[in-house]
Amino acid sequence: MTDFFKDISPLSYDPDGAGLAFRHYNPDEVVAGKRMEDHLRFAVAYWHSFAWPGGDPFGGQTFDRPWFGDTMDLARLKADVAFEMFDLLNVPFFCWHDADIRPEGDSFAESLRNFEEIVDYLMDKMESSKTKLLWGTANLFSHRRFMSGAATNPDPEIFAWSAATVKNCIDATHKMGGQNYVLWGGREGYETLLNTNLKRERQQAGRFLQMAVEYKHKIGFKGAILVEPKPQEPSKHQYDFDVATVYGFLKEFGLEGEVQMNIEQGHAILAGHSFEHELALASSLGIFGSIDMNRNDYQSGWDTDQFPNNVPEVALAYYEVLKAGGFTTGGTNFDAKLRRQSLDPVDLIAGHAGAMDVCARGFKAAAAMLEDGTLEEMRAERYAGWDSSDSTAMLNSDFASIAAQVEANGINPQPRSGRQEILENIVNRFV
Amino acid sequence: MTDFFKDISPLSYDPDGAGLAFRHYNPDEVVAGKRMEDHLRFAVAYWHSFAWPGGDPFGGQTFDRPWFGDTMDLARLKADVAFEMFDLLNVPFFCWHDADIRPEGDSFAESLRNFEEIVDYLMDKMESSKTKLLWGTANLFSHRRFMSGAATNPDPEIFAWSAATVKNCIDATHKMGGQNYVLWGGREGYETLLNTNLKRERQQAGRFLQMAVEYKHKIGFKGAILVEPKPQEPSKHQYDFDVATVYGFLKEFGLEGEVQMNIEQGHAILAGHSFEHELALASSLGIFGSIDMNRNDYQSGWDTDQFPNNVPEVALAYYEVLKAGGFTTGGTNFDAKLRRQSLDPVDLIAGHAGAMDVCARGFKAAAAMLEDGTLEEMRAERYAGWDSSDSTAMLNSDFASIAAQVEANGINPQPRSGRQEILENIVNRFV
Amino acid sequence: MTDFFKDISPLSYDPDGAGLAFRHYNPDEVVAGKRMEDHLRFAVAYWHSFAWPGGDPFGGQTFDRPWFGDTMDLARLKADVAFEMFDLLNVPFFCWHDADIRPEGDSFAESLRNFEEIVDYLMDKMESSKTKLLWGTANLFSHRRFMSGAATNPDPEIFAWSAATVKNCIDATHKMGGQNYVLWGGREGYETLLNTNLKRERQQAGRFLQMAVEYKHKIGFKGAILVEPKPQEPSKHQYDFDVATVYGFLKEFGLEGEVQMNIEQGHAILAGHSFEHELALASSLGIFGSIDMNRNDYQSGWDTDQFPNNVPEVALAYYEVLKAGGFTTGGTNFDAKLRRQSLDPVDLIAGHAGAMDVCARGFKAAAAMLEDGTLEEMRAERYAGWDSSDSTAMLNSDFASIAAQVEANGINPQPRSGRQEILENIVNRFV
Amino acid sequence: MTDFFKDISPLSYDPDGAGLAFRHYNPDEVVAGKRMEDHLRFAVAYWHSFAWPGGDPFGGQTFDRPWFGDTMDLARLKADVAFEMFDLLNVPFFCWHDADIRPEGDSFAESLRNFEEIVDYLMDKMESSKTKLLWGTANLFSHRRFMSGAATNPDPEIFAWSAATVKNCIDATHKMGGQNYVLWGGREGYETLLNTNLKRERQQAGRFLQMAVEYKHKIGFKGAILVEPKPQEPSKHQYDFDVATVYGFLKEFGLEGEVQMNIEQGHAILAGHSFEHELALASSLGIFGSIDMNRNDYQSGWDTDQFPNNVPEVALAYYEVLKAGGFTTGGTNFDAKLRRQSLDPVDLIAGHAGAMDVCARGFKAAAAMLEDGTLEEMRAERYAGWDSSDSTAMLNSDFASIAAQVEANGINPQPRSGRQEILENIVNRFV
Repeated sequence: MTDFFKDISPLSYDPDGAGLAFRHYNPDEVVAGKRMEDHLRFAVAYWHSFAWPGGDPFGGQTFDRPWFGDTMDLARLKADVAFEMFDLLNVPFFCWHDADIRPEGDSFAESLRNFEEIVDYLMDKMESSKTKLLWGTANLFSHRRFMSGAATNPDPEIFAWSAATVKNCIDATHKMGGQNYVLWGGREGYETLLNTNLKRERQQAGRFLQMAVEYKHKIGFKGAILVEPKPQEPSKHQYDFDVATVYGFLKEFGLEGEVQMNIEQGHAILAGHSFEHELALASSLGIFGSIDMNRNDYQSGWDTDQFPNNVPEVALAYYEVLKAGGFTTGGTNFDAKLRRQSLDPVDLIAGHAGAMDVCARGFKAAAAMLEDGTLEEMRAERYAGWDSSDSTAMLNSDFASIAAQVEANGINPQPRSGRQEILENIVNRFV
Repeated sequence: MTDFFKDISPLSYDPDGAGLAFRHYNPDEVVAGKRMEDHLRFAVAYWHSFAWPGGDPFGGQTFDRPWFGDTMDLARLKADVAFEMFDLLNVPFFCWHDADIRPEGDSFAESLRNFEEIVDYLMDKMESSKTKLLWGTANLFSHRRFMSGAATNPDPEIFAWSAATVKNCIDATHKMGGQNYVLWGGREGYETLLNTNLKRERQQAGRFLQMAVEYKHKIGFKGAILVEPKPQEPSKHQYDFDVATVYGFLKEFGLEGEVQMNIEQGHAILAGHSFEHELALASSLGIFGSIDMNRNDYQSGWDTDQFPNNVPEVALAYYEVLKAGGFTTGGTNFDAKLRRQSLDPVDLIAGHAGAMDVCARGFKAAAAMLEDGTLEEMRAERYAGWDSSDSTAMLNSDFASIAAQVEANGINPQPRSGRQEILENIVNRFV
Repeated sequence: MTDFFKDISPLSYDPDGAGLAFRHYNPDEVVAGKRMEDHLRFAVAYWHSFAWPGGDPFGGQTFDRPWFGDTMDLARLKADVAFEMFDLLNVPFFCWHDADIRPEGDSFAESLRNFEEIVDYLMDKMESSKTKLLWGTANLFSHRRFMSGAATNPDPEIFAWSAATVKNCIDATHKMGGQNYVLWGGREGYETLLNTNLKRERQQAGRFLQMAVEYKHKIGFKGAILVEPKPQEPSKHQYDFDVATVYGFLKEFGLEGEVQMNIEQGHAILAGHSFEHELALASSLGIFGSIDMNRNDYQSGWDTDQFPNNVPEVALAYYEVLKAGGFTTGGTNFDAKLRRQSLDPVDLIAGHAGAMDVCARGFKAAAAMLEDGTLEEMRAERYAGWDSSDSTAMLNSDFASIAAQVEANGINPQPRSGRQEILENIVNRFV
Repeated sequence: MTDFFKDISPLSYDPDGAGLAFRHYNPDEVVAGKRMEDHLRFAVAYWHSFAWPGGDPFGGQTFDRPWFGDTMDLARLKADVAFEMFDLLNVPFFCWHDADIRPEGDSFAESLRNFEEIVDYLMDKMESSKTKLLWGTANLFSHRRFMSGAATNPDPEIFAWSAATVKNCIDATHKMGGQNYVLWGGREGYETLLNTNLKRERQQAGRFLQMAVEYKHKIGFKGAILVEPKPQEPSKHQYDFDVATVYGFLKEFGLEGEVQMNIEQGHAILAGHSFEHELALASSLGIFGSIDMNRNDYQSGWDTDQFPNNVPEVALAYYEVLKAGGFTTGGTNFDAKLRRQSLDPVDLIAGHAGAMDVCARGFKAAAAMLEDGTLEEMRAERYAGWDSSDSTAMLNSDFASIAAQVEANGINPQPRSGRQEILENIVNRFV
C-alpha cells in the first residue's frame, strides 16, 4: 500500500452519512430490475485523476503527486495509487490512454515496450481488484508530432505512426478484457481552412476508422468501437463535430453498423446541444454506446470537465439512456477532473464520490419517471393522430394526392398546447 | 410607376461615384472567364425587403410602407414596388415565400387562389423585366398552425397542409421558370425533448423531403431542390442543424444525389462554423448548391440577417464557391434585412447596393487569389507526401502491416510549420 | 367572474398532491423566522401572462385570448382575468408596464386618460384582493417612436415624451401603493457605434435617472427606484450591461445611495455571469433590491424568459438573497412567459405553480444551508489569515515596506486546496 | 549575432514587395500630421514570441527554441534573439512580464537577483537599439502559488509576495524608461462563489491598486498605470471584467484620475463587446490608455491571441483611437502569438510584419475617414436637436415641468432613419 490516501477508508453506502460516504449510491440496490452497479457501470478516467498536473493556459502544474515523472517506477507507483482509489470508491471500471499509463520512450519501439510492460502490471493488479477495463484509447494529440492531426495529418508517416499506435492500443484493450475501444480525434480537424485539404483529410479519417474496425474483427475483439464527438478545442474545427455529423461520416464510409457513440456531456454543450439531445439522437439512429458523464460550464467556451453535480440535468440524461435500453458494453465514465485548486488527496475521493451520488440520484429519478409512465403517455397521446391507417396511407402517397385531399376536405388544422410547463412540473416531482 | 423610390435613378457602375452607384460591381466586366453578373447571380429576398415590418422581440412595426395590409390590391402594389427596386438595382434574380407575395386567405383554397393570381401578376411583370426567379419556397413557420412544426408536426393534418402547400409552391416555381426550390425548416425541430418523439419526427421529415423530390420529377421541374440548414431559432433545436447534419440525413433517406445545400452565412455562424467551412464541406460532399449572403453579428445568439459588409470575409466565401466550380442553378441571395431604424426608401437601395459592391470586391479578390495560385500551391505542397505510391499502398493495407513497418523502419516523423500567418498575409494582398 | 379559467380551483398546499396544487410552497410555513410568503414575495408579471401574444421573430400570435385588442373594455376584461389568476395562485404581488394595462391612445393625452382610468379600475380590484403592487414601470421600447432609445434618443422630444411617461408611471405606482419603481432601458443603447454619440447618450441617461430620483422625493414616494441591467437585446449594446456597469454609472451620476438593482436571471446569463454572481456583487456594493426569477436557455443567445425549474440553481440564488438579508421592498417577480405552444389556460396556472414550488424548494434548501453553517465556516476558515493584526497593518502600509518584509523573512507561501468539490457536495446535501 | 533568424534581412517598406517586406507600413510617412511610427507605436510582446512554448490544453510544447530552459545564459540568449527581431522589424517598443525575461529562482530573493541582472542586460541592449520599453508588468498568475489569486488571495502572504513583486517590476519599468506599467489580474477573480468572499477580495484588490499608484508617485515614475480588463479565463469570473466594470471599481476606490485602461481586442470580444465599443467607452470616461491589438476567434470561448488580419475591423478601432486624440504614453502592443503549428523563425517575422501592415492599412483608412468628415457630420446632424437652448433647459428642469409641456404641446415625435447601411457603405469606401 502506498500512503497517498492515508487515513481514508473505503466508502460505504450510508444514507445519513456525513463526510466520505455514499448517501445515494448503493451498488446492490435493485432499481428497474437490476443492481445499480450494473446499470450505472461507473468508470474512473486515468488521465484526469492520475496524469493531469493541474495546468491551464495561464498556469502550470498545481498538483504535487509523488508519481509525477517519466520513469517506469513512477508509472508503477501511479498504477498502485490508481487501484487504491478504485478500491476506495468500489468502482467497477476504469479507462486509459496509452500515454496516461506509460512513460513516452525515445522511439516508437521503446514507448511500446514501456506500454506492454505497464499493461502487464495493470493486469496483475486487476487480478486482485474488482475493477475492470471499460475502454482503452490512444492519445494522438498531446505530443508535438500530432500537432497537425493523426489520421488526418498531411504527413503519411504520422498516419502510419497513429495506425501502429491504435493497433497496439486495441491489442492491449483486447488483452485486458476491455469492453470497448474509443477514438477521440482532438486534432482530427483544422486550425485554418487556408492550409487544409478538407476532402482528403476526411477521406484519410474514414479509411483509418475502417482499418480500426477491420483490425478489431481480425483479432476477434468483441468489444465495441466507439467514436467520441467534439466540435472544437483543441482544433478550430473537429471533423467529429457531434452525433449527427459522425452519423453522416459513418454512412459515407459504410461503418454505421460497426461503430457506436461515446457521448460526453461537455462536448454536447460545446456543440450547441443538450446532453440528452445527443443521447436521444444516437439512440434513434441506433448508434448509442457509452457516456462520459461530466459537467461543462455553460458560460465558458472550452471544455471544463467538471464532476457532474446537477441532479435534474443528470436525471434527464439517464432517462434517455434508459429509454435506449441502458448500457450494454458502455458505461458511465467520469471524464472529469478536479479543479486545479483542489490539491488534496481527499478532494480526489470527494469529487468522485459526490459525482457517483449525483448520478445515483439522477438515475433513480429517471427510473421512477419511466416506471410512472406519465411522460411517455403524454408523448404518445400527442402523436396519436399518426396511429391511424389514413396517416400511414398518406405517408405512402404523394404530394399531388395529399394536395387534392386538402383542397377537397377543407381541413383547417388547429394547434394544440405543447404542455411544456406541465411536463417540466412532472419531471420536478421526481428530481 | 409607383412613387415609392421617387427621385432615385437606376444605379450604374461608377468607380469614383459617391452616393448611389456601384463602385465595384460592374455586371459586364469579365472576371475568371465570365461576366460578373453571371458569376454572382444576385437575388433580392422578397420577404425582408417587402414583407418584414421591422419588428423585433421587444417592439413592433417601424417601417411605414404603403403596401402593408392584407388585400390583393396591396399585394399587387408590393409587387410593383419590388420590380421597381429590381430594376433600379439591375438584379438578375429574386426569391419568394408564398406568404410574402399573397395575402393569407380564410381557407387553404382561398390562400391558393390568392397565390395563383399573384403568381400570374408577377409573371406579367417578369415579361418586361430582366429579373428572373432564383428560387421559391413555402413559409411553413409563421402561422400559428405551424407552431409545432410542418412536416414534423404531431398532427398529420398539418403534415398534409404542408405537403399541399409545398406542392403548390413547387408548381409556381416551375411555372415561373425558377431555377431552384428551397426548403428551410425553421420549426422542423423542437422546443423541448419532453414532448417530442425525435425518431418519428425525423422520419416524417425524411419522407416529406422524398415526396418533394418525387414531385419535382413527376412534373419535370429541372431546377435543384435545396435544403437550408440552421441550428436553432426559432426552434430550440432544428433537425437541419448544419451541412454535415443534413448530409447524414440525406444519406439516411437515400437523397444525397437529389438534394443540395442552400448555405447561409448567418446560419453557419450560429452553428459554430465559419461560412467558408460550410461551403467547403458541402463542396467536398458534392452537395453545394446556392448561398444566402448576409452577415451575422458574431456576438448575438440570434439571426441578425445584416447586409454583408466585410470584404475579407466575403472573399474567403467566394474563394470556396469558385473552387467548387461556381454557381450552376444557385446564386447569391441577399437574405438580409435593413436594420429596423433604417426607415427610408433610400436605405433599401443603399443596403443592397453596398452589399453588391462588397460581394463584387470579395469576388474579384477571390478570383485573383485563385488565378495567382500561391495558396493552392502551398496547400498541395503540404500534402505532397501523400502523392507517393507507398502512401496509397498504405491506405490499402491494414493496421498490422503498418505497425510492422513502423517498428521495422524506426520512423520518427517531425512536424512541419503549418504557415498559417504566411497564408493569411497572402490573402491580405488580395483583399 | 369571467370563465377563462373555468373549472380551475384555487391552489392549495398539498405535499402529496398531483395536478394543480402546491407541493412545496406553503405560504404560512415559517422558515428562517418568517412566513414563506413574506420571504419570497411572489409577483406575477402582467406583460408576459396577459399582454404577450406568443410571437417570436419567425412567427406571430399563437395565444387566443378573449381580451386581446385595443379597447378599454378589453383592458378591463384583461384585468378581471388577471386578478382571477392572482387569486387562484394566491400571489401577494403583481407588476405592470403602462402599455400592458391600457390601450395606446392616439395622443399622449389619450394614452394617459386610458392609463389613469385603468389604474383606478385596478385599484378597485385590489380592494377585494390580497394582491398588491410590487412595482410599476414604463414601456419605453415597444412603440416605434422609441426605436432609437427613450432617454438616450437623438431627438429631445422623445426624451420629453419618456420623462412625462415615467412621471405618470411613478405617480400611478405611488397611488397604488407600489413598493418599487423599475427602469429597464431595453433601447437605451445602440445598434451601431457609427451613428451614436456614446458620451452624450450616457449623459442623457444619467440626467434622466437623476430626474426620476428627484421626482420620487418630490412626491414623497417611499418605494425604491430600481434599475434592471441587461447586456443586449433588443439593442446591440445596452448601457445598463450588468450590475458592475450600473454601479459605475450610479457613481458617475451620484446616485449610488438612491438606486438599487432589479436583477434578472436571464439577463445575468446573457451578460456572461451566473445569477448568484450578480446577486452577490449587488449585495457587496450595497445596491441589492429585487429579482426577476426566470430561467434562460444557456444555449440561446437571447432572452428566453422561461419559468424557473432547476432547484439547485434556484437554491444558490436564494442563498445570496438570504445572505444579503432577504428582500425589503423587493420580491420574486416571475418575468417568465409560457412557451408559445402552451396555449391553454391551465398552462398559465401550471407554469406559475411549478415555478412557485421550485422557488419554495430552492428557498428552503438555501435557508437550511445557511442554518447548517458549514459553508460559511469553511469560507471564513479560508480567509482566516486575514484576521490577524499583521494583515491589517500590511493593508495600511505600502509596497516598499511589504517588499522589505518579504525579502527579510524569506516567505515561501504554499497554496492550499480550494475544496470546490467538497463544497459542491455539501450543497448537494440540501438541494 | 545569434543565427536564429539566419538569412532574414531587416524588413523595409516596399509597396510592391512580395515576401518579407512592409507593403503598407512606412514608419516615416506622415499621416494626420505625424509619422506613422509615432502614431502607431508598435510593441512586441516578449511572452508570446519568446517565452511561450506552443502548448494548449490538449498538448505540450511544439516550438523548439534554443533558448528554452531555466538558466541565466539562456535568458540572455533569449534577449539577444528578441532584440534581433526588434531590429529586423524596426519596432519602437517592446513589453515584458518579469517571468518572461528571467528564470524563476528558488526563493523570492533569487528570482529578484535574476530579474535585476536581466534588466541590466536588456538595458545594455537598448543602448544600441531603437527599441524602447512600452510597458512592464508582473506575472502573478502562472506559478502555482497564485492559483487562488495574487492581491485577492485568501492568504495574506501571497498578497505580500505580489506586492513586493509589483514593487520590483515598477522599479525596473521606471529604470528602463518604460512609458507605462500594466496590471492584468488573470487570477484576481474566482472559480466558484462557494469558497469566495467576494466583498473582501474586491477590497483587497482596491487597496492593492491604490498602493501601486502610491508607489508610482513615491518613486517619481511618470508613466501611466494601466489596468487591462478581461471577463474570464483563466478565472471563471475576473473582477476586471470590462472597461465599464473597471470604471466603477476605480470610482469606488478613488482612482479614476490615476489609472487608465489597456484594452485588448480579444478581451473585449470575450466580454461580449466590440473592440471599438471598449475604446469609445474608455475615451468617453477619460480613461483611455493603450491597446493590445490582436484578434480573437469569435467562435471560440477562449483567448486565441491571433495576429490581427481584418483591415475593416482594425480601421474601426483606430478610428476610435484617433477620436480619443491618439496615443500619449500608450501604443499598439501585439499581444498575439503564432499558431502553435507555426514552427519556423520566419513565421515569427511574418506574423508581426503582416500585423503591422494590417494596422497601417487600418490606421490610414481611419485617418482618411476622419479627415473626410462625413461620418462625423452625419453623427452631429443626428443629434442636432439637442443643440437648442430649449433642450438644455429641459435637461436642467424636472419631470413635472416636462410632463406639463408634453401635455400642453401635444407633441407627437416621429422616428427618423438611423441610416446604418449608408454609414457602413461610407466606411467601406475607405477600408
